[in-house]
Amino acid sequence: MYMESQTTHLRELLQEIAHLNAAIALLNWDQEVFMSPGSAQARANTLASLSARHHELVIATVLQNEVTRLEGLPDGALDARETALVREIAHDLRLAVKLPTEFVARITEATSRGQMVWQAARAANDFNQFAPVLEEIIALNREKAEYLGFTNSPYDALLDTFETGLTSSEVTKVFTPLKERLIPLLKQIAARTTAKRSDLEGNFSKESQLQLSRDVATAMGYSFDHGRLDLSTHPFSTSFHPTDARITTRVDEQDFWVCLGASMHETGHALYEQGLPAADFGSPLGEAASTGIHESQSRSWENIIGRSKPFWEHWYPELQRRYPEPFAHINLDQFLPALNEVRPSFIRVEADEVSYNLHIILRAELERDLIEGTLNVADLPKAWNAKFKEFFGLDVPSDALGVLQDVHWSCGYFGYFPTYALGNLYSAQLWAAVRRDIPTIDTSIAKADYAPFLGWMREHIHRYGRQYRPAELLTRATGESLNPEYFTAYLQERYGMSASTE
Amino acid sequence: MYMESQTTHLRELLQEIAHLNAAIALLNWDQEVFMSPGSAQARANTLASLSARHHELVIATVLQNEVTRLEGLPDGALDARETALVREIAHDLRLAVKLPTEFVARITEATSRGQMVWQAARAANDFNQFAPVLEEIIALNREKAEYLGFTNSPYDALLDTFETGLTSSEVTKVFTPLKERLIPLLKQIAARTTAKRSDLEGNFSKESQLQLSRDVATAMGYSFDHGRLDLSTHPFSTSFHPTDARITTRVDEQDFWVCLGASMHETGHALYEQGLPAADFGSPLGEAASTGIHESQSRSWENIIGRSKPFWEHWYPELQRRYPEPFAHINLDQFLPALNEVRPSFIRVEADEVSYNLHIILRAELERDLIEGTLNVADLPKAWNAKFKEFFGLDVPSDALGVLQDVHWSCGYFGYFPTYALGNLYSAQLWAAVRRDIPTIDTSIAKADYAPFLGWMREHIHRYGRQYRPAELLTRATGESLNPEYFTAYLQERYGMSASTE
Repeated sequence: MYMESQTTHLRELLQEIAHLNAAIALLNWDQEVFMSPGSAQARANTLASLSARHHELVIATVLQNEVTRLEGLPDGALDARETALVREIAHDLRLAVKLPTEFVARITEATSRGQMVWQAARAANDFNQFAPVLEEIIALNREKAEYLGFTNSPYDALLDTFETGLTSSEVTKVFTPLKERLIPLLKQIAARTTAKRSDLEGNFSKESQLQLSRDVATAMGYSFDHGRLDLSTHPFSTSFHPTDARITTRVDEQDFWVCLGASMHETGHALYEQGLPAADFGSPLGEAASTGIHESQSRSWENIIGRSKPFWEHWYPELQRRYPEPFAHINLDQFLPALNEVRPSFIRVEADEVSYNLHIILRAELERDLIEGTLNVADLPKAWNAKFKEFFGLDVPSDALGVLQDVHWSCGYFGYFPTYALGNLYSAQLWAAVRRDIPTIDTSIAKADYAPFLGWMREHIHRYGRQYRPAELLTRATGESLNPEYFTAYLQERYGMSASTE
Repeated sequence: MYMESQTTHLRELLQEIAHLNAAIALLNWDQEVFMSPGSAQARANTLASLSARHHELVIATVLQNEVTRLEGLPDGALDARETALVREIAHDLRLAVKLPTEFVARITEATSRGQMVWQAARAANDFNQFAPVLEEIIALNREKAEYLGFTNSPYDALLDTFETGLTSSEVTKVFTPLKERLIPLLKQIAARTTAKRSDLEGNFSKESQLQLSRDVATAMGYSFDHGRLDLSTHPFSTSFHPTDARITTRVDEQDFWVCLGASMHETGHALYEQGLPAADFGSPLGEAASTGIHESQSRSWENIIGRSKPFWEHWYPELQRRYPEPFAHINLDQFLPALNEVRPSFIRVEADEVSYNLHIILRAELERDLIEGTLNVADLPKAWNAKFKEFFGLDVPSDALGVLQDVHWSCGYFGYFPTYALGNLYSAQLWAAVRRDIPTIDTSIAKADYAPFLGWMREHIHRYGRQYRPAELLTRATGESLNPEYFTAYLQERYGMSASTE
């Protein structure tokens, strides 16, 4: 695939690591999708062992030396992509060597175990079951931040692992004005909202919903010959290679959008993975640019397309055909506002687009405080509920509908949530660029022809891998650096709030 | 689990290898059960990479040195189990170091790819699609035999990897008289057989059959909290740890026994894996004694129990309840001979107990000739069909019903088939010992109480792992070395042929 070049040996070394990584990803996927509960401790041990081995390969002298050699080459010896490859892998290695292998094994074992404990605690609506392992995982993340190093906050070190260069103060700088704008906007839009999602409830069999998800994913351009769709408690996507990028979803037999929305979201992630250059498998050039950019892809498909009128101009007659009850009695102009009902509610993954970022900001503030040590695990449910009241005006009735709802902290993903909000901001900015570049995009979408949209993403985002850092990638794609105005403008347009109504 | 001892460090090293092995086993399981076809080449590459890494760990100096140190300890420094552990791991390492790592990667890639090619070739009934990769795999097995070394036949070296010490001439010594006895016995029993398996045909839904398999497996003692049952083209069992031992089965909606028989067979394997000592995970003491002993467990459950009158005294009323059509009209005395119809047929995994070993002997003779180079792949279908006519008196109508039916050669398992026949011989000898030790065993089985039978196997086979070599394990369990007479006596008793009728 690649001619023999200066980076051939480096690529070979990285491929070996990537194969081990693929095995780890499969072990994780299996744990969420198919593994029996009694296998949990053995799986945690296996993941810990393989992660330690993976880490040993990443910090191996042979790899370090090869990167040092390539960094020392004269200007012009490497082309632009090779230069980016060396820059990114050098960045990764500089961080990786700071983590002791035994620490990698410890945090992997604790988070694999943590996920199983969280599942049981959530099912039992019992935060106390989860608290000890959560404390353990937070302590491990603080330890990780110490190893990685930081100037202002240990949270900085963790954020950087998901979105290179992102800091706690930058998060605050973006999130605080956003929050101040969203809290009243949510209140205003919710007050005007009369349509109800519950008007769309019916009795939709699991199998028929999975079939609808498969049909929509196929139309979006997802290749089922290079992936699968399964069920899991918490929908996710994972990839072992661009030819094996898998998605999971979940089903609510009363509310069809729970499944379809999650499926479109995860398909958006998987389309990015299937669109990465296979010839670069294992190297940063074959990896997604960042967690935030990844989320921009999933949110584009789930929300910007999946909640739009053009999308449903094609799919609503199909939905009516598949589910005459209740949709035969509801027309498209009634359906759309009900699907997009804006109303404060408890569960993030079921939230409307206006509420969603507030859910994220709530989590980001709490996890920052947990990592900085200003909030104790014992006080977390109370803190969650207080903030929830402040943001949404609602009293959280149970921890299952509150602090226990998300898998992320049990996986040890502290610093991940903010990238969800960034993904929303990116997606709105990318959408503005798509509309500018492809004036007929709404017409295509109304015909279920997603090739122009996917093609634009393939061209401006997917094919680059990590050749550009997220900020540069966004600027190259849209002609502008991150501008949260695109997101609020998008909300105002979609929810019929003129700027003056604000 | 273990006190600090001389073998603690060795056990730790071996556990790291076992975790990698568990990941490889999951990659293989997923390939057969869930992976999409378009992911095949990436999976083959991942398996090749991990197998090479696994091999590097096995032949690592640190492990070699530790084994050498333990072998040099004075008598009495190790207890009986530790002594066996060192003996077995030393045996494994002496073989492993003979295989170059790049060879391990090559044969793994070819056989992972080979399985996907075989699947397509079998579906298309086209041997020519399969021939090139089969030639490649045979050449790799000959190369493997050269590395491992042998005195008489390269086939010896391969047999030894499945059943330590087994040789081609020993296989011939057991199989030739067995074949000469089975060919006429099959003819005689078939001639007297009037009942037909096809009398039991009906319309049995896939889901209800899987439920029956789950219910029977649970009754057998299989823990679904430590494993799973899924569908695959070729039923198999695999284990990642005693707490995660999985089985697959297949379904024929007309013939219920295809699924249940396969499920009981694979459950028999999985019960062995679930019964291995978890504290010895990773060491030979935590591994099955041999492929043949493994097969003795599966065949015991599938045939000796699963085809017996006591078993069906409990389950037949249940079968009648679940499937009134056709079983309401068939009584147990009509059902049993129909289930056990003895009749030459094409597919090994559907064969009756009398035919079965002839299917194996046919394959063993052919694979020996392929490995010894006296048979070419191009001539294989013709040779298969000629031998089939000789053994069974039947003309093979298609390669899908002939040479393409089994997955084994595509996996590179040359030397594996003979252990199936050994498993049958072991199972009959073990059964005679069970009946002697537990005179009430038939009564227990008639009450679906399998605890005495499973308990006997746990006590005499499972808990030892590889503490004893197969021959010694059999002798300890039954008081006698391998005696094929038990098997023919069992057939004669079950199929009502008195010794004099022969």
